[in-house]
Amino acid sequence: MPVKLISSRDNSLYKSLKKLAQSARERRKSGKALLDGVHLIVAHTERIGPPEMLVVAHAAQDKPEVRGLLERLPDVALIVLSDALFGELTPVDTPSGVLAQVALPELPLPQALQCVVLLEALQDPGNLGSILRSAAAAGVDAAYLSPGCADAWSPKVLRGGMGAHFALAIREDVDLVAAAQAFAGEVVVTSLQGEISLFDLDLSGTVAFVIGNEGAGVSQTLQQAATRRVRIPMPGEVESLNAAAAAAVCFFERVRQRQSTLAP
Amino acid sequence: MPVKLISSRDNSLYKSLKKLAQSARERRKSGKALLDGVHLIVAHTERIGPPEMLVVAHAAQDKPEVRGLLERLPDVALIVLSDALFGELTPVDTPSGVLAQVALPELPLPQALQCVVLLEALQDPGNLGSILRSAAAAGVDAAYLSPGCADAWSPKVLRGGMGAHFALAIREDVDLVAAAQAFAGEVVVTSLQGEISLFDLDLSGTVAFVIGNEGAGVSQTLQQAATRRVRIPMPGEVESLNAAAAAAVCFFERVRQRQSTLAP
Repeated sequence: MPVKLISSRDNSLYKSLKKLAQSARERRKSGKALLDGVHLIVAHTERIGPPEMLVVAHAAQDKPEVRGLLERLPDVALIVLSDALFGELTPVDTPSGVLAQVALPELPLPQALQCVVLLEALQDPGNLGSILRSAAAAGVDAAYLSPGCADAWSPKVLRGGMGAHFALAIREDVDLVAAAQAFAGEVVVTSLQGEISLFDLDLSGTVAFVIGNEGAGVSQTLQQAATRRVRIPMPGEVESLNAAAAAAVCFFERVRQRQSTLAP
Repeated sequence: MPVKLISSRDNSLYKSLKKLAQSARERRKSGKALLDGVHLIVAHTERIGPPEMLVVAHAAQDKPEVRGLLERLPDVALIVLSDALFGELTPVDTPSGVLAQVALPELPLPQALQCVVLLEALQDPGNLGSILRSAAAAGVDAAYLSPGCADAWSPKVLRGGMGAHFALAIREDVDLVAAAQAFAGEVVVTSLQGEISLFDLDLSGTVAFVIGNEGAGVSQTLQQAATRRVRIPMPGEVESLNAAAAAAVCFFERVRQRQSTLAP
């Protein structure tokens, strides 16, 4: 297959890739995103299908893992960028050398939602990626993001998610208060003043976990829409958890309870 | 108290602060670090004592929270930096306007260690800060860091720790294999191939948790020094957790087990 080599910043394809890399608005408008690195591209291929286009840095063409990927996806359009241009598309210090353009997948919601996570104004991309990753591993069905959350399809969040984006239904710009009110199960918010310990609440049924903004926590209106305020017991001398750590503790306490419920 | 205003990059005090802000080697050599923001400075003051020096940005002198801090610490040496100089000392996009120079606290180890975390070549400062924060909240006694870990006293790790650095004994450049071999309890490493579920292992006694590098995981030699390989059950479609999320799940499963053991 003849491969197109692009080394000019004026190239229109390069310009559209750069917009996708840098602008959440552009990703939303076009319904597309860029995946950085072999791991994410393989995860997308296995769970959703092949990407629309592969973009390789000139210097990376002969890397074994890039070569393997190209051999696996012989029918996907391929362009090669000069290393300087490629470097401008990726915020990573050590570029992987390969990107893929994909359509934003909209995974269907299961008919009966068992577990969702409601993320309110979560601003740190690292936290958001980690929460999506934990949720996918714990078998959470869906993540609903409020307006004001970091863009779920930004390069940093995709990297942190490590493939979770293709295993979990993600919905952005969701009215979380309405979602909480409509939810057919417990809506659980964690709070230092929670009336019950996370470990004493039955989480084995249908549950929505609410995770709030890193600084401000969960808004009053969303707290009021919750059915349960739980506290994570903290016997240490600091009463404080990172949002992503608190989410992981909640998700996996549910995993534990369901396993002990199902055990003989 | 007359306050010194510094606006020259050639000022020797400014130069020493800048080294402290930027260089792990300098922090180690001098045994000092910089704390950024009122929250960390108050946490240090309450748990360790007042800082050696306060550094305020010219524009921040009249912020109520900065003013309150200065009134609380009237005997601490104070310097004021021009906003441009202050901005060069802090990597944060929205500077707090106040820094403190402190001696690196070396919190004593308890006589009988109940729970420690061994961190091997953990490289992401956000992960490291989050793990220290979770550990302090869960009542872990100490964190041992291998060579190759991110510097525990860098601005990013301090920010992520949210005061954990003053509630938890931290030791850097530790030979973790030797520490694991000398440890008087279970040494638990998580692994996708672990022979027992985290939820089925008795964690209520003396436990060391091993957390490995984000990419490479735990080294073979350290795995061999562990007494238990556990898996965190992941019913979802992705078998993968961020290091800080995995650590939080382990720490709080121990909290849960100890509470149910101690309950009447």
